[in-house]
Amino acid sequence: MAVSFAEMLDRHAARMPDRVALICEDRQTTWSELWQRCQAIAGGLCKLGLEKGDRVAFLGLNSDWFYEGYFAPSFMGGESVALNYRLSVNELSDCMTDSAAKVLIVDPARLTMARQICARLGGSVILIVIGTEPEGKEISYEKMIAAAHSIDQKIGAGDDTLIIYYSGGTTGRAKGVMLSHWNLFANSTGHAQVYDVCSEETHLLTGPMFHLGAGARVFCSVYAGCTMVIQPKFTPLGFLQIIQQHQVNATMFIPAMMQMVLDLPEFGDFDLSSLRQMSFGASPASEELLRRIVAAFPQVAISHGYGMTEASPVLAALGPEYHRADFAEKGKLGAVGRPVPHCDLRIFDANDQELPVGEIGEIVARGPNVMKGYLNQPELTAETLRGGWLHTGDAGYFDEDGILWISGRIKDMIISGGENIYPGEVENILSIHDQVAEVAVIGIPNDKWGEAVHAIVIPAAGTAPDPAELVAYCRANLATYKCPQTISFRHEPWPLSGANKILKTELRKPFWGS
Amino acid sequence: MAVSFAEMLDRHAARMPDRVALICEDRQTTWSELWQRCQAIAGGLCKLGLEKGDRVAFLGLNSDWFYEGYFAPSFMGGESVALNYRLSVNELSDCMTDSAAKVLIVDPARLTMARQICARLGGSVILIVIGTEPEGKEISYEKMIAAAHSIDQKIGAGDDTLIIYYSGGTTGRAKGVMLSHWNLFANSTGHAQVYDVCSEETHLLTGPMFHLGAGARVFCSVYAGCTMVIQPKFTPLGFLQIIQQHQVNATMFIPAMMQMVLDLPEFGDFDLSSLRQMSFGASPASEELLRRIVAAFPQVAISHGYGMTEASPVLAALGPEYHRADFAEKGKLGAVGRPVPHCDLRIFDANDQELPVGEIGEIVARGPNVMKGYLNQPELTAETLRGGWLHTGDAGYFDEDGILWISGRIKDMIISGGENIYPGEVENILSIHDQVAEVAVIGIPNDKWGEAVHAIVIPAAGTAPDPAELVAYCRANLATYKCPQTISFRHEPWPLSGANKILKTELRKPFWGS
Repeated sequence: MAVSFAEMLDRHAARMPDRVALICEDRQTTWSELWQRCQAIAGGLCKLGLEKGDRVAFLGLNSDWFYEGYFAPSFMGGESVALNYRLSVNELSDCMTDSAAKVLIVDPARLTMARQICARLGGSVILIVIGTEPEGKEISYEKMIAAAHSIDQKIGAGDDTLIIYYSGGTTGRAKGVMLSHWNLFANSTGHAQVYDVCSEETHLLTGPMFHLGAGARVFCSVYAGCTMVIQPKFTPLGFLQIIQQHQVNATMFIPAMMQMVLDLPEFGDFDLSSLRQMSFGASPASEELLRRIVAAFPQVAISHGYGMTEASPVLAALGPEYHRADFAEKGKLGAVGRPVPHCDLRIFDANDQELPVGEIGEIVARGPNVMKGYLNQPELTAETLRGGWLHTGDAGYFDEDGILWISGRIKDMIISGGENIYPGEVENILSIHDQVAEVAVIGIPNDKWGEAVHAIVIPAAGTAPDPAELVAYCRANLATYKCPQTISFRHEPWPLSGANKILKTELRKPFWGS
Repeated sequence: MAVSFAEMLDRHAARMPDRVALICEDRQTTWSELWQRCQAIAGGLCKLGLEKGDRVAFLGLNSDWFYEGYFAPSFMGGESVALNYRLSVNELSDCMTDSAAKVLIVDPARLTMARQICARLGGSVILIVIGTEPEGKEISYEKMIAAAHSIDQKIGAGDDTLIIYYSGGTTGRAKGVMLSHWNLFANSTGHAQVYDVCSEETHLLTGPMFHLGAGARVFCSVYAGCTMVIQPKFTPLGFLQIIQQHQVNATMFIPAMMQMVLDLPEFGDFDLSSLRQMSFGASPASEELLRRIVAAFPQVAISHGYGMTEASPVLAALGPEYHRADFAEKGKLGAVGRPVPHCDLRIFDANDQELPVGEIGEIVARGPNVMKGYLNQPELTAETLRGGWLHTGDAGYFDEDGILWISGRIKDMIISGGENIYPGEVENILSIHDQVAEVAVIGIPNDKWGEAVHAIVIPAAGTAPDPAELVAYCRANLATYKCPQTISFRHEPWPLSGANKILKTELRKPFWGS
């Protein structure tokens, strides 16, 4: 039989009907209610004329409604489209057109935006509104649920697409990543094992659900049958309040969030003893931050995850044994860890030939977690999955212990005097210098070498580092050809992508012109 | 992407080429060698004209060759057929005909049998012989591997059948259970989680590989990347020697095997400290045996698994927390445990309506581990999987703690005076009586009640129980209508099926005639 997330919800509704599945603000939903609501939403979609394979988009902050938006379409064989509310009306209209979504469900916070999108699309999309009186042809979400129409389509399962995420705003056209029930099941099994996710615990979801980075927790919690407390939008105080109030056992964060949490003067006022497991990702954490986290949460097993939407998303994880007090001595600080059990990771050169241990190349992946493909982009799909391997675009290498290290993006690679230089390697060295808060390394034009290595440094608070000393420091720790030839200082935040990654294209622009 | 066991072997060969994958008698095979051998076998099958979807049967004792027989056909999209060497030439010929296997691979121990089968099939099957000089058109296994022909077919993956087991000799025609890569992946993920299977440990395989009960360990060890030591045929002394010699970390047993192991005078002479995990199944263990196991292996996490071939196979497991010194006080002795995380188990009445907690009915299952179906038996498949649920034929119930209990086979159910009586319930009570070694309860003809409850008891060594006292004992512990009305004593072993289950059909015969 094929796996089905709709059937998993059915299972929990049967086994623990009255246990709370979802908590969001003042609303609580039991597994039985969640299952009934998803059934009713799917029935409503059938009533609107949708058929198996049709798409339903969701626009809004994190919420129990967004959670329903993940799964309810699959109850009638539909596919969900998770929209990024940080995008513009223009960009979102493109996503709607690309996905050919027939229905858009919107929460109260993004109603105006949704109406603009629908107007732009010329009335071809059915708008379902939550918590608002519908206007014109709009449909009330809660009234549709109350009507509880029956489902006349088959449920989604197996290779059927469960959800589409739009990713990669940094380079050209947005890519609709199609993930199947099998893809997300595979990730959930490995996720549950690697992060030790136990059934019937309570998880806090705080990262944006329009990204799979946070969304992966949703699928894993459904697989394992966990209660999910959803924070609509991250605030450090709210994060602590929720953990204490709902006795949260597990959560995830990105380093910038945890920095804010630890900096809160009220941090010590909260009882966080229920917390047992935390994972983090999206960007590496500094040694200083890791030390603070380990000291602040001594009882918590901390893991780092590395992945991408196209891999459903986890590819590798660095386990709790590397995030204890002695982690620095283990020499794996900054590594991304071991491949998850269901996935094969290799390092390929530019000709897709496998590289040996220790050599830097492109990280490629193969396994049941790898996406079906990019919607409407067969050529990009074929290129990205060529030879049966997902080409991540990340540069990295395996060390002798089988631990994966990231060296940056392949496209950020600097070629200077014929040598390949990965900015990540240089950034890793500079970032542990006392006077460096953050650093980005890029290639800039150089008549002699083609490109030269340039470092942009945000100095540590209260310091004014000497460029010559930083260069000397690099020379003491890196091969000469990898050392920055020039260093500039920056005092404003980095230009960031929607996924909070530094936009190096922006940093390069002043040097390269058009 | 679809999951593929061939790709998993490829992954281990790349990641740990020189680590030992298989040990059998004096032969050791590294992951790299295993992968190369499977490639070469698959190439040989292509050379013989086999195409994607063609079947390759294996007949023999447990061995590294049988392990190769599980996976090598899938390297060229073929399907494996695991033959039970305990069956007769007649029965095995039927399995060959039913599966339309084009090739039969045989080990030295079953060569004569294989030649008889091939003769009976009129020369339509290609016989590949291991460790023997081939005769006539026969092909040498090792020469085929040495030739290393290239593969011109696609590998098996996803919904492709990986292996077929023949099951159910107790009732009529043997059933070829078709299991896909996805089915066995799903079981492996849950298996790894429930039994805490760690990568790169050493497992001992001793149960027969022609049953999935033992075979499941093979798939899980490939999923997790574990070394497998294979005992060709179980002997208690060999079992202990292998654990000591190879520092085995995990194994599985059936209670009868462990009884023999513990009864060995040499038991105390072995260093078994490497052992970390054991699971058992196929039949329940008595409280006395469990106490001996827990005392003999104090450091070992012990789990009980319940399943069937059609479910790839595990359905439920009772974890180590119930197999410690205080297990009897936990009140779950004899239960089969909680559903595995990927599978939905329910209790249905005769009309396939769900029954509430505490009520006995048929155990049904739904999930990605449920078989594709029975080969060539679409009607039986449709009947067994009706409504999307695997009907196990086992009677059971869930208790208030969500723990599953088995009450016997649905078809063994006794109907007496209009009441449904499950022999298992009566057997559980009688089996803990001091003077009862083993017991089987059946229904026998009764003019007044339709059927009457009859117990057949094997007395404990040195005892001669009084039937009236046993009946009185039952009345003190069971509803009157469930108590045996008659008791007979037996001193020889039970008639057993190929899967070591008591053949109640045989026990009933003397009472029911034809």
